[in-house]
Amino acid sequence: MNTAILLISCPDKRGITARVSDFVFRHNGNIVHADQHIDDQANTFFMRIEWSLEGFDIPLESIPDAFGPVAQEYDMDWQVFFSAERPRIALFVSRHVHCLYDLLLRYREGQFNCEIPLIVSNHEQARNIADDFSIPYYVFPKETGSRRQQEESEIELLETQGVDCIVLARYMQVLSPAFVERFPQRIINIHHSFLPAFKGGDPYRQAYSRGVKIIGATAHYVTDELDTGPIIEQDTVRVSHRDRVEDMVLKGRDLERTVLAKAVKLHLERKVLVYDNKTVVFD
Amino acid sequence: MNTAILLISCPDKRGITARVSDFVFRHNGNIVHADQHIDDQANTFFMRIEWSLEGFDIPLESIPDAFGPVAQEYDMDWQVFFSAERPRIALFVSRHVHCLYDLLLRYREGQFNCEIPLIVSNHEQARNIADDFSIPYYVFPKETGSRRQQEESEIELLETQGVDCIVLARYMQVLSPAFVERFPQRIINIHHSFLPAFKGGDPYRQAYSRGVKIIGATAHYVTDELDTGPIIEQDTVRVSHRDRVEDMVLKGRDLERTVLAKAVKLHLERKVLVYDNKTVVFD
Amino acid sequence: MNTAILLISCPDKRGITARVSDFVFRHNGNIVHADQHIDDQANTFFMRIEWSLEGFDIPLESIPDAFGPVAQEYDMDWQVFFSAERPRIALFVSRHVHCLYDLLLRYREGQFNCEIPLIVSNHEQARNIADDFSIPYYVFPKETGSRRQQEESEIELLETQGVDCIVLARYMQVLSPAFVERFPQRIINIHHSFLPAFKGGDPYRQAYSRGVKIIGATAHYVTDELDTGPIIEQDTVRVSHRDRVEDMVLKGRDLERTVLAKAVKLHLERKVLVYDNKTVVFD
Amino acid sequence: MNTAILLISCPDKRGITARVSDFVFRHNGNIVHADQHIDDQANTFFMRIEWSLEGFDIPLESIPDAFGPVAQEYDMDWQVFFSAERPRIALFVSRHVHCLYDLLLRYREGQFNCEIPLIVSNHEQARNIADDFSIPYYVFPKETGSRRQQEESEIELLETQGVDCIVLARYMQVLSPAFVERFPQRIINIHHSFLPAFKGGDPYRQAYSRGVKIIGATAHYVTDELDTGPIIEQDTVRVSHRDRVEDMVLKGRDLERTVLAKAVKLHLERKVLVYDNKTVVFD
Repeated sequence: MNTAILLISCPDKRGITARVSDFVFRHNGNIVHADQHIDDQANTFFMRIEWSLEGFDIPLESIPDAFGPVAQEYDMDWQVFFSAERPRIALFVSRHVHCLYDLLLRYREGQFNCEIPLIVSNHEQARNIADDFSIPYYVFPKETGSRRQQEESEIELLETQGVDCIVLARYMQVLSPAFVERFPQRIINIHHSFLPAFKGGDPYRQAYSRGVKIIGATAHYVTDELDTGPIIEQDTVRVSHRDRVEDMVLKGRDLERTVLAKAVKLHLERKVLVYDNKTVVFD
Repeated sequence: MNTAILLISCPDKRGITARVSDFVFRHNGNIVHADQHIDDQANTFFMRIEWSLEGFDIPLESIPDAFGPVAQEYDMDWQVFFSAERPRIALFVSRHVHCLYDLLLRYREGQFNCEIPLIVSNHEQARNIADDFSIPYYVFPKETGSRRQQEESEIELLETQGVDCIVLARYMQVLSPAFVERFPQRIINIHHSFLPAFKGGDPYRQAYSRGVKIIGATAHYVTDELDTGPIIEQDTVRVSHRDRVEDMVLKGRDLERTVLAKAVKLHLERKVLVYDNKTVVFD
Repeated sequence: MNTAILLISCPDKRGITARVSDFVFRHNGNIVHADQHIDDQANTFFMRIEWSLEGFDIPLESIPDAFGPVAQEYDMDWQVFFSAERPRIALFVSRHVHCLYDLLLRYREGQFNCEIPLIVSNHEQARNIADDFSIPYYVFPKETGSRRQQEESEIELLETQGVDCIVLARYMQVLSPAFVERFPQRIINIHHSFLPAFKGGDPYRQAYSRGVKIIGATAHYVTDELDTGPIIEQDTVRVSHRDRVEDMVLKGRDLERTVLAKAVKLHLERKVLVYDNKTVVFD
Repeated sequence: MNTAILLISCPDKRGITARVSDFVFRHNGNIVHADQHIDDQANTFFMRIEWSLEGFDIPLESIPDAFGPVAQEYDMDWQVFFSAERPRIALFVSRHVHCLYDLLLRYREGQFNCEIPLIVSNHEQARNIADDFSIPYYVFPKETGSRRQQEESEIELLETQGVDCIVLARYMQVLSPAFVERFPQRIINIHHSFLPAFKGGDPYRQAYSRGVKIIGATAHYVTDELDTGPIIEQDTVRVSHRDRVEDMVLKGRDLERTVLAKAVKLHLERKVLVYDNKTVVFD
């Protein structure tokens, strides 16, 4: 089904729901999903509304103009997406390939509404996987050139390829603030711990040392500060004294791949709104 | 906050969301929660909409008349509730008191928006608990009189007390179809298994014999057929070969009380719609 | 580390633990893992004991003779395994390849202590995957020949290949009792429901119709009766009214592959004992 | 059943299991549970062995002498406990009474093998609950006297009452190092977060601000440093953007009480060994 999705956040005020659904209805759209949330403390209203474009009487390119007055009236931050426009995702990976593999299998099965035009890495490790899936593979090795220059080349490549969003599928290099700024709320990372516990390096070893009875994985949008961006999805699994670091790594892998896949799917289905370093997830 | 809640189900058609939210808006209601669901297979639309009554310009008793035309237009099944009208709940219990205790503690803490005017049992077991919480306790012992006569007395008592809804907090007698018919979708039961597995008696023993690695609990509305009514909430917990039947009983208790409490809360907050022997839960 | 593993079950009697650990110790074995369980009801004792073979003073082939008297004294059912002898596993698959893929990736990563000399299917579907992993792929199409003849050819193939154990990675044909008898407690199946709920065909559709709030997956040993063999591992995941059958299928896939992989690992590490159509799992 | 339980930790060496189980067997003890663990990294061996005292030929008071030589040979840290000697537990509580209530209900049901001779608080809040359960209630109000003097009075009271172990059932005062030192590894606290995330005050508010999708509870032994002692048990529950701090508090309560109850039970059944600020839990 061909649909449009409107994501809205604005100060909470009487009548928003009515006004927005009336807009869709008057123009002959059939709402297939609508969800809203009010944050009392922040006095902010959030909405996701999706409607079938069959019979909708505004041409897609004119929707912004048509909706503009409503948006202005309520002082909205808003975005409109169309299910027919598949976002272009770049996957970044280093040496651990389990998340990459998992995303590619789901992609091939049709679970993700997107294109994956390229894979970027700082290692050769995953080239044969990229080949198996016939996706171009670009390596920017750590050793060559300054990090800054490399990031500029990466950005150039991404822009040439029309990339909308980046998924860090266990990419073990920190991106610079300049890089992050180019893709605000459009870089998704998987961190292999239950954040905010065990930020930074080697979280399974940290978890082992602390003697926790449960480990986790966290998918979040990347921001300037390491491992502190808005959380999209988390999950946990039990461990015991019998689990050595290696066992935690294996158990954690299964978490990482499902948590990351879920976050990517939510993002692609436009179900995530970010505010105040947190997310509203309309699943 | 004083609110009204409208629960709607009807054949799916263009414009319902817009029409309903417009109704609320035009009469100066401020929507605080709205959620909807479309079952593609059944071609049915479900909606829960809640709005603040502050400034709402229709007197409560006139809402049905005012909303009538909208409802008719879309051929709606609908109900309206007011948060200020606290439902009156009767708790039924037999010998196992952990669910009863748990519900009463939550009630005392203010977790449930309801009145609990009475407790009914077929045993004396829980009388002292009822006394502790100053709630009248009525015993209809199994031995005395025919079951049919007793159910009639029970119904009479419940009607005298203006009871809206019954919660079977581990009540170990089967209610007759005649009784159930008096409280359609208003009797909540906790069954101590992960339904549909292990219906009927002694489910922990059944689970032990089958050698399952996970046990569960299920809260559902009571229908004519035993343990097959619409499921409101379920949860599970791991067991191992080390767990004997007694251990499963203990682990299960913790599940039973949280699952039942959650179902009661969802019901009281009018977040559950029933159709086709299933539930839509707008949590 | 090179180890031996002894799995024991016998009537419970004073002194078994001491007798067995003394046997290992006297012959200079160093115990690296020992766990035991007593089923009070069945009055049965179970033990798993694993020791390092470094310095152990009985040649492997003589262990049965040396341990014989102890076993006889206590009327033991027992088996000894050596970590250096990697079992040979045949994977059976039909059209759904996610479990197969997952097992092969873990195999390649070294998570399983086994050989996988062949993959058997009734469809061509998974041939390219088998090729990717360089594993011979044999198809016994449903249409050709009688089922009985085909099973005989399959058994012949398995015996020629020295197969110890079969993993049904979403293999959608029922094996005959004659086939099952050849591999007692050595055929592992993944059923895509939380058994004993939803046995047989299309369990996700069954789950959808029943309106459950949680779905599951179950790995079990295959016995004569469909989906009723000893359960090795289960897991569950939440669903809601928003999940259609297709969504349950996708959520279920992630469960199936982790549950099956865990069961295979437990089996290969000789951590599972079967009795009374149940399992003791020493994890 | 009347049993003895031996908890052992020592440098890993060949023959410990055999030696210990032989000790029990030679003296005619029947082992009902035995579990062991080897920490490769720390090269440390841990064991829990429990045997029936029926027919055991060493008088309880002589066990230390009889076992001494074995312990010395392997340089063991060891303790022996008897199921017939019920530990005496003091419950400490402040204003939040849900954990206290839960522990008392389980105690009354016979889930805990212990005595609870007294409840200590810095508030009057829970006095009526203590009365309901006929347990003496002592208040040491925050305002009166210096904290140091009060702790001394508390210790005196605990010693007079022969208290072995303290359970902090949401006790909101920090104990001084001097106090903690008197009950090493015998003070159990419940912290209302998934440690090490959200140490210190108001963890639900911290969790809300960080926007986590899962919250947790942690039971641990108290050490000098706040919320960093050895973790006994943890559990987690999902939250969403719809959960305000108050909702997290309610969801968290259910976790806190089950996690604390489980930790207390494990401790009372002598299933917990502490080392290196971690725990081995033989459940």
